[in-house]
Amino acid sequence: MKFTVNSSLSYVVNAPTTFIFNIHALKTVNQTVWEEQLTLDPSMKIEEYTAHDGSSRFVRLKVMGAMNFTIDYSAIVEVTPTIIDENNSGQSVPVVELNSYIASFLYPSRYCQSDKLMTFAYKQFGHHTSVYDKVLAITDWVHSNIDYISGTTNSQTSAMETITERVGVCRDFAHLTIAFCRALSIPARYFTGYAFQLNPPDFHACVEAYIDGNWIIFDPTHLAPLNGLVKIATGRDAADAAVSSIFGNASGTSMKVDCQVLDSSFVPFEFGENQKGICYQ
Amino acid sequence: MKFTVNSSLSYVVNAPTTFIFNIHALKTVNQTVWEEQLTLDPSMKIEEYTAHDGSSRFVRLKVMGAMNFTIDYSAIVEVTPTIIDENNSGQSVPVVELNSYIASFLYPSRYCQSDKLMTFAYKQFGHHTSVYDKVLAITDWVHSNIDYISGTTNSQTSAMETITERVGVCRDFAHLTIAFCRALSIPARYFTGYAFQLNPPDFHACVEAYIDGNWIIFDPTHLAPLNGLVKIATGRDAADAAVSSIFGNASGTSMKVDCQVLDSSFVPFEFGENQKGICYQ
Amino acid sequence: MKFTVNSSLSYVVNAPTTFIFNIHALKTVNQTVWEEQLTLDPSMKIEEYTAHDGSSRFVRLKVMGAMNFTIDYSAIVEVTPTIIDENNSGQSVPVVELNSYIASFLYPSRYCQSDKLMTFAYKQFGHHTSVYDKVLAITDWVHSNIDYISGTTNSQTSAMETITERVGVCRDFAHLTIAFCRALSIPARYFTGYAFQLNPPDFHACVEAYIDGNWIIFDPTHLAPLNGLVKIATGRDAADAAVSSIFGNASGTSMKVDCQVLDSSFVPFEFGENQKGICYQ
Amino acid sequence: MKFTVNSSLSYVVNAPTTFIFNIHALKTVNQTVWEEQLTLDPSMKIEEYTAHDGSSRFVRLKVMGAMNFTIDYSAIVEVTPTIIDENNSGQSVPVVELNSYIASFLYPSRYCQSDKLMTFAYKQFGHHTSVYDKVLAITDWVHSNIDYISGTTNSQTSAMETITERVGVCRDFAHLTIAFCRALSIPARYFTGYAFQLNPPDFHACVEAYIDGNWIIFDPTHLAPLNGLVKIATGRDAADAAVSSIFGNASGTSMKVDCQVLDSSFVPFEFGENQKGICYQ
Repeated sequence: MKFTVNSSLSYVVNAPTTFIFNIHALKTVNQTVWEEQLTLDPSMKIEEYTAHDGSSRFVRLKVMGAMNFTIDYSAIVEVTPTIIDENNSGQSVPVVELNSYIASFLYPSRYCQSDKLMTFAYKQFGHHTSVYDKVLAITDWVHSNIDYISGTTNSQTSAMETITERVGVCRDFAHLTIAFCRALSIPARYFTGYAFQLNPPDFHACVEAYIDGNWIIFDPTHLAPLNGLVKIATGRDAADAAVSSIFGNASGTSMKVDCQVLDSSFVPFEFGENQKGICYQ
Repeated sequence: MKFTVNSSLSYVVNAPTTFIFNIHALKTVNQTVWEEQLTLDPSMKIEEYTAHDGSSRFVRLKVMGAMNFTIDYSAIVEVTPTIIDENNSGQSVPVVELNSYIASFLYPSRYCQSDKLMTFAYKQFGHHTSVYDKVLAITDWVHSNIDYISGTTNSQTSAMETITERVGVCRDFAHLTIAFCRALSIPARYFTGYAFQLNPPDFHACVEAYIDGNWIIFDPTHLAPLNGLVKIATGRDAADAAVSSIFGNASGTSMKVDCQVLDSSFVPFEFGENQKGICYQ
Repeated sequence: MKFTVNSSLSYVVNAPTTFIFNIHALKTVNQTVWEEQLTLDPSMKIEEYTAHDGSSRFVRLKVMGAMNFTIDYSAIVEVTPTIIDENNSGQSVPVVELNSYIASFLYPSRYCQSDKLMTFAYKQFGHHTSVYDKVLAITDWVHSNIDYISGTTNSQTSAMETITERVGVCRDFAHLTIAFCRALSIPARYFTGYAFQLNPPDFHACVEAYIDGNWIIFDPTHLAPLNGLVKIATGRDAADAAVSSIFGNASGTSMKVDCQVLDSSFVPFEFGENQKGICYQ
Repeated sequence: MKFTVNSSLSYVVNAPTTFIFNIHALKTVNQTVWEEQLTLDPSMKIEEYTAHDGSSRFVRLKVMGAMNFTIDYSAIVEVTPTIIDENNSGQSVPVVELNSYIASFLYPSRYCQSDKLMTFAYKQFGHHTSVYDKVLAITDWVHSNIDYISGTTNSQTSAMETITERVGVCRDFAHLTIAFCRALSIPARYFTGYAFQLNPPDFHACVEAYIDGNWIIFDPTHLAPLNGLVKIATGRDAADAAVSSIFGNASGTSMKVDCQVLDSSFVPFEFGENQKGICYQ
């Protein structure tokens, strides 16, 4: 499936500031970037580089003084995610067999305090026999028990607050889902990307859980089709995979995001007997 | 029903310290203290007084220097709680009709952050039509969802932590129950007392909710019969009604608590069609 | 000194809602209300009453359905606060001699977690010999170390967050100051009132600390003269003394507050050898 | 300098449990392991592996059922840390020039909520002109303002709590120091190791800050000489670099740690004009 994606971010800079942007479509075995264009207005020197673990493509620039600027990214991306079928057992990979990179997604992180949620997670989800069923149950629970309300949370909100206050946005839904997975010793990571049919349009946040050797994607918000995503980055949580990190004195003034399917035959993914999920790699 | 109650608390004092103890059986229209004795070893000057709102009987003393001491209290108390029957409608008293003393139990307090639990409380308990049913549902929920494990929490643990971590002791069960009630605009207060058949013996903490003009007692721990309690104090939460408050440099070394029924005919209270609860006043 | 005070609050109500307002000038031995007027637009039935401990004058009303309304209060108030001079020793009243009402202001409350600040308070302020010097040092510290920035905090922000994040508004400055006082066994309470020369005009929050038998007022924001205040209420913290408490589904749409001195001879209070502070009673 | 290091950890296992241990001396360009021995009693199959980024050497084992066991590690390790002298400018590497691995240590993590400490960090430490001076000032501040008291904190304690409660152990001192560094855009990571002259003997936690191209070590506890350390691991915080991670149902029963210098000429490192610090790589 081919997508066109666009994002346009504007900033007012008050003093010398370094920006790290995380808005490029990632290049993976399942995701090919056919065309892409990055423009800055006014034009400035930038540096593009890929994270040491391949999980993001960054753009970095330093603005030397007070000014306004806009960064625009657009791309045509072909995404061919793997359908997870009956060949995936739905079972966990035992911790004792995980490689150290994947095992790093078992640990608590800034916004996913899984160490505080172990009793809750075992009591609420522990009875499901397969890891796959556990993650589905977690996703359903988060969907049913957290209210999606824009503007209720901010960039410091974490899973501990969401489990108490029961409101949030896609970022908060993802953090809580990840925290529950890790509390049950299931590796889970934060996924950020462009999303077709997300309304209102915005960057989206989902969750990838590691089940029988695949990173399977889950979206506790149910706001976009699971096969309508273009991956930007993965990380432990939003601290690793923020759309923009600002070191200095600047603030955002506007943001526009768009994601369209180029193919009229798009059929939204639905869970079924032999459609257990989707893997973006 | 007559009870004998005893408590014995020992301290090591390192520097001049003021103690406020809250271990006397309260005197109310439903509770008569037939005999009581307070002894300090070594003997010291103490002051006994009653809280300005009648909610506690305090003992205050100042220890002038380093020493060890023990305070012993024993009493014979007759308790005649009111059975709440069909005459109680189970409905709330509208906030607009509450007097200002009772209304003060609508507000969040140190360990009962009801302002953070409103979304959860409405979603989980809001569908019950009567206030009585809401409080029963809250009590059941806390009983089923929080694990009672000694030593998991401390004197700084609050409802926000309990809703996340899902473990605690009677104090934590009471704080969370109170916070949920207040989140639904139900006045609720902390009850501390002696409890028959509590095992292991200790001071106990319960909850009183204000329903159709009565303070009805609830015990989310289910650890003692509701008619086996001797009231010591009520307050907004454990900050008001602590067994001991220590201003200085001292620490407890041992505590013994006992509560026995003097009457062989004791029948534990059970909820029934015309036994909606118990009111200690 | 005579003041005219005015406040005007507008709300949109979405469903039946009870409001408790706390906007009347309090009547005390130091504060006489010469004239006052309360109007609702549209006109509705209200109830005025005084808190059981005399600390607030409330207005309560129930709005039966969806509507907009405005509540206006205006008054002429004469305030004759006591100047605290050398007759106040600056020493604490020992805990062992406090009455139980005043002792209740030693305990932690929802927004003033003094039990978490004891080590910090002793280390930072413990070396001052008099209680008066301790409270002055606390006030100075809060003024110097917390940035006053509108919009950085909300109605759930507490002293624990302010000590970490170091930003807030008058409410947060007051909560942190109170928490430090209580951590040092100094009774302290939340004061809310009208304030002359406060810019931008708003309700103001200050702190009263109990020193040698007087409740002395302190303002860690330094935003208004200490003798330019008209007391509305005191309480343990903003949970007790909120300008408005809303039980239902409604939200504020606008607020105007004004406070003017009627006497041209107003001289702002300054600390001096024989001007240790001001007591509003 | 050569060291002998030993650790012995005993556990009671109640149900099948996977352990990941992090007790081996790391092998780096500055640290050579001459001899080492790992024994389990009773003997069990284990797996040794190195983290994907080279930051730890792990031992992993799965215990199949209820039992007690002990793991012993001993080694002779030669450590030749680099002395940081005047060739290190003490200046930061601009964010715009950091590689993505080092940049990952700019972000907040589970126990180091740097995003909540920015105002405080700028106000308290921002005036120092070099990054080196900032980190020294942070270390001094943490040493002076946090009380080292065993048993006051647990494995869930984070920098936010330490800045409020002002007590902790080496882990907490390190987390707060790291959080302050990151709040000032200085990459900082958690160091765990064996420490000579640490009293009582235990695993130690320190901080590495990235300054002019070197990871320089700092110890806000001042409890061991900076050149008396044997590195076990580095990570974002204790979530990455825990001595043991337990997935299952087991608990520790005893721990013994020892670290001795084999060379009688050991001279503790002292900061001096041309001894700005130590780098373990």
